[in-house]
Amino acid sequence: MTTGKTVQPEKQALTPVLGTGLPRSRGGSPHPLAAELTRALGPRKVLSSLSERLNYRYDAIAFGATPFAVVLPETTADVVTAVRAARAAGIPIVGRGAASGLSGGAAPSEPGLVISFTRMTRLSIDAVRREARAQAGVITLAVTEAAKPHGLIYPPDPASFRTSTLGGNLAENAGGPLCFKYGVTGDYVQGLEFVDADGDVHSLTRDAYDLAGLLIGSEGTLGLITEATLRLTPPPKFTRTLMAHFAEVGQCAEAVSAAIAAGAVPSKLEFMDRACTNAIEDYLHLGLPREAEAVLLVDTDGDDLATVEEERALVEAACRDAGGTVRRAESDAEAAQLWQARRSVSPALGRIRPQRMNEDIVVPRSVLPEVVREIRALGDASGLHLVQFGHIGDGNLHPNILFDPRSESLEAVHELAHEVARVAIRHGGVLSGEHGIGSMKLAFMREAVDAGTLAALWRVKHALDPSGTLNPGKVLPAELA
Amino acid sequence: MTTGKTVQPEKQALTPVLGTGLPRSRGGSPHPLAAELTRALGPRKVLSSLSERLNYRYDAIAFGATPFAVVLPETTADVVTAVRAARAAGIPIVGRGAASGLSGGAAPSEPGLVISFTRMTRLSIDAVRREARAQAGVITLAVTEAAKPHGLIYPPDPASFRTSTLGGNLAENAGGPLCFKYGVTGDYVQGLEFVDADGDVHSLTRDAYDLAGLLIGSEGTLGLITEATLRLTPPPKFTRTLMAHFAEVGQCAEAVSAAIAAGAVPSKLEFMDRACTNAIEDYLHLGLPREAEAVLLVDTDGDDLATVEEERALVEAACRDAGGTVRRAESDAEAAQLWQARRSVSPALGRIRPQRMNEDIVVPRSVLPEVVREIRALGDASGLHLVQFGHIGDGNLHPNILFDPRSESLEAVHELAHEVARVAIRHGGVLSGEHGIGSMKLAFMREAVDAGTLAALWRVKHALDPSGTLNPGKVLPAELA
Repeated sequence: MTTGKTVQPEKQALTPVLGTGLPRSRGGSPHPLAAELTRALGPRKVLSSLSERLNYRYDAIAFGATPFAVVLPETTADVVTAVRAARAAGIPIVGRGAASGLSGGAAPSEPGLVISFTRMTRLSIDAVRREARAQAGVITLAVTEAAKPHGLIYPPDPASFRTSTLGGNLAENAGGPLCFKYGVTGDYVQGLEFVDADGDVHSLTRDAYDLAGLLIGSEGTLGLITEATLRLTPPPKFTRTLMAHFAEVGQCAEAVSAAIAAGAVPSKLEFMDRACTNAIEDYLHLGLPREAEAVLLVDTDGDDLATVEEERALVEAACRDAGGTVRRAESDAEAAQLWQARRSVSPALGRIRPQRMNEDIVVPRSVLPEVVREIRALGDASGLHLVQFGHIGDGNLHPNILFDPRSESLEAVHELAHEVARVAIRHGGVLSGEHGIGSMKLAFMREAVDAGTLAALWRVKHALDPSGTLNPGKVLPAELA
Repeated sequence: MTTGKTVQPEKQALTPVLGTGLPRSRGGSPHPLAAELTRALGPRKVLSSLSERLNYRYDAIAFGATPFAVVLPETTADVVTAVRAARAAGIPIVGRGAASGLSGGAAPSEPGLVISFTRMTRLSIDAVRREARAQAGVITLAVTEAAKPHGLIYPPDPASFRTSTLGGNLAENAGGPLCFKYGVTGDYVQGLEFVDADGDVHSLTRDAYDLAGLLIGSEGTLGLITEATLRLTPPPKFTRTLMAHFAEVGQCAEAVSAAIAAGAVPSKLEFMDRACTNAIEDYLHLGLPREAEAVLLVDTDGDDLATVEEERALVEAACRDAGGTVRRAESDAEAAQLWQARRSVSPALGRIRPQRMNEDIVVPRSVLPEVVREIRALGDASGLHLVQFGHIGDGNLHPNILFDPRSESLEAVHELAHEVARVAIRHGGVLSGEHGIGSMKLAFMREAVDAGTLAALWRVKHALDPSGTLNPGKVLPAELA
C-alpha cells in the first residue's frame, strides 16, 4: 500500500474561494486574447469589458479570479477556436455552465479564458432509442420537459435542476435526492463529445477504455464536454411521501437502515438536522418540529400503487419502531408542502450568513449517527454557525458552515471545514458525493487520497492536458516536488 | 472532429488468436524470471514447467503465447512482488482469472508472465452496508451465494458466472442477460484496489477522477485489479418467463420495442436466430421451433406479483401484435426448461466447429432487424457457419463465426468478422457490449474509433503504463508512427 500522506495547506487554491470577490485585474483596453477571439468569432460571442467579465468569476459558493475574456460559443467549432487561441497564448481555460455548482469548480483559480456554454442549447429526443442528445448548455430540467411528451424522463435531479446545465452536471457528476434509487448523472451517459486541451474534438462511446467516464466528474480539468447522449426512462406512475422526526439522529439513521433492510428502496431519503430545520422554520414558518434533532423526508415510487404504498408503510413502521413521529402526505398538494421544506434549505441558509462553505461527504450509513454527532460537536465548539442535511440513503451528508467574511475568521471557517473532512475520512468516507472537489475541498485531498494514488491521478491529468491549460487548481492538489 | 481513419490489418495481434495453439517457446530449464519468483515467493506459488505453463496460454476463445512463468498469488503483496520482478526484467504481464473470456483478453499476445488470481478468493459480506468485499479470484456466483443468507444478491450475470472470476468480470466489464434492467459489472463497483505497472498498490473510491471506472473494462492494460467492493441488492421476489418465436427477425425487434414503449422493463430479453436455435435443437432436442427466424426469451421480475404478471402480459401482447407465437412458462420448472435453450448456446455451437470467433456488437435497437439481415447475408455469402444471438433489449448482438482452423481459411474468418464489425459501425453501433476488445476485435478499432481519440486513449495508457508492461497487444491497436 502506498502511503506517505503529506499534509500541506493549499494556500494558493484557498484564497479565491474564501476571498471577498474583488476583481484581481482591472484595465481599460481588452486583453490581447479577447481582441484575437473577437476577430475570430465576432463581437457577439466574446465579452471583454470588465463589467461583463466580473460576472464570470464565481459559482454559487466561491469567488475566483476575473477572467481576461469570456467566450459564449454557439457550436463545438467555436469551442475549438477558443481553446486553440488560449492554448497558443498559454492562458488557462475554465468551462462554465449556469455556475450553480457548490465546490468552486467553475470559479477560476487564476485569470484566464472562461468558456460559458449557455448558448449551446441544442436538444433532441429520440423516443424509440429512449435517448436525448443535448449540448452542454441545455438546462437539466429541459431534458425531462422535452422527453415528457414521449412518456420519458431524465432522472438525475440536482437541487439546482431548474437552472443548472448538463455540462456542469457532467463536469461535477451531479447527484440529487433521486440518485439513491436512480443513480447519478454519469449513470445516464451513453456517449459524449469533448474538446481536448489541443482543441481536437472526440466522440466517445462507453466501450474499451471508459474515457467518457473519466471526463465525467473531472470538472473541466481533462477536457471540455460539448455534447452528450443521455439515457431516458419512463417516469414512475405513483409517488408517496412521508415526513418523520426524531429526538435523536441515531434513531433516524436506524429507521433508514431498518426500512432498507426490510426491502424498501425509496426514491428519496432526505435528512435535515435541528439547526437546518430551524433555519427553514425561521424563514418560512411551515410548522416544522423545531425540537427534533432529525427530520426525515421520504418518497417511495413505482408503477404499482399497492407496492408504492407498501414501501411507504415499511418506512413508516421502521420510523415508528425507531421512536420517530410520522406524518404521511395524504395528497399531492400535501407532499409538495412537505418537500417545500427541503427545497428551501439554500435560501433559508442564505438569510443567516452571506457566505457558506458546503461539504459533500459520503460515509457508510452505519456510522452516520456518530459522524453527525461529531460534526455537531465540532460546530458548537467552533462558535461558527453549522447546519447538516443530505441524502441519508447513501450516506451523503452536506455539513454547511455559514459565515460572514467581514466579521468571521476565514481561517477558522477553513479549519472547521478541514476537521469535518477529517471526520469523514476517519470513518471510512470520501470527500465528495455529488458536488465535486473543485477548489473547496482541494486542501483535504492529501488526507483523503494517498500520495501514490494522487500521483497516478496526476499522470492521467498530464496525459490529457500536458500544459495544464484546463481549469488549473481544481480537483488535484499541487504536485509535491 | 478528428478524422483520418487509417485501416491497417493487425497481423501481429491476430496470429495468436487464430493460431493452432502450439507453444512458441520450449525449453528445459526454468526462465530466469521463474527462478527469481520461485526464490521470492516459494515454489508453491510459481509454475515454471512447460506442461504447466501451456495451460495458461488461452482463454475460452483464443490461443496466445505460452508464458515464461505463471504466478499464483495469494495476497496483494504477492502480486506486487511479481509485478516488480517482471517489470525489472522488462517482461510483459498478463492478468488472468478463470480465462472464460471471449475476446482473447487473457490470452498473452507475447510470451511473458501470467498472474493467475484463482487463489485470491477472500470474500466477506457486510449486510448492513449491502456490500461485498471480494478479491479478484472470487467466482462470480460465490458473491451471490455468500450474500443470499443476508437476503441480498449480486446481479451481474455473465453467461460464465459459475466459473468466471470477479477480476475477469471487472477487467472486461462483463454484462449478462440481467444487465438490460440491472446494469453491468462496473455499475456495482463502489471501490477497488489495484496494483499499477510499478508495483504500487492503490485504493480507489469513485469520487474525483473516476480512475476506478477507467480500470474497469481496461482488460489489465492499465493496472491489475486485486480486490473490489461491490454493491449488493435484494433479489426480486417474483420472476415470470415467456418464449416467443417469429417468422422474421424484424417482427421480434418490433415486439421488443413495442413492449418497452408500453412500459415493460423486462429483466432479460434474449434473442436467438434460426441457425442458433437449430444448433441447440440438434444438440438437445428440446422441441424448439426450427422454422422460426427469431426466438425470444423474456423474464419479467419484481416484488409485486401482479406487476410482474402485468409486465409479462405487455410483452406477450406486443409479441402477438407483431405476429409472434407465444408460450408462457406456467411453473418454475417450465421456465428453467425454456432457459435451458439459451444456456446451451455455447456447448451447442462447440459441437459444430472446434473454434469460434465471437462478436459482441451493440447497435441501436431500431436498426437491429436490418443489422441481423445484413449479417445473415454476409454469413451466407461467405460459406462459413455463422449464428446470431444476444441481449436484444440493449441491442447487444453476438454474431459467432464457427470454424475449423484445420480446414477453413483463417483469413476468410477474419474477413467475415471484419465485415460484421463494419455493419455495426455503419449503423452507429460499437464493437463491444460486454466481452471487451481483447485481441479479437483489435483490428477493427481503427474503424470504430477515430485516430485522434485513439491517440487520447494511448496517452492514458502511457500515463499509467509507460513501459507497456501490462497486457500488451490488447484493447488499443498499435500506434501509427
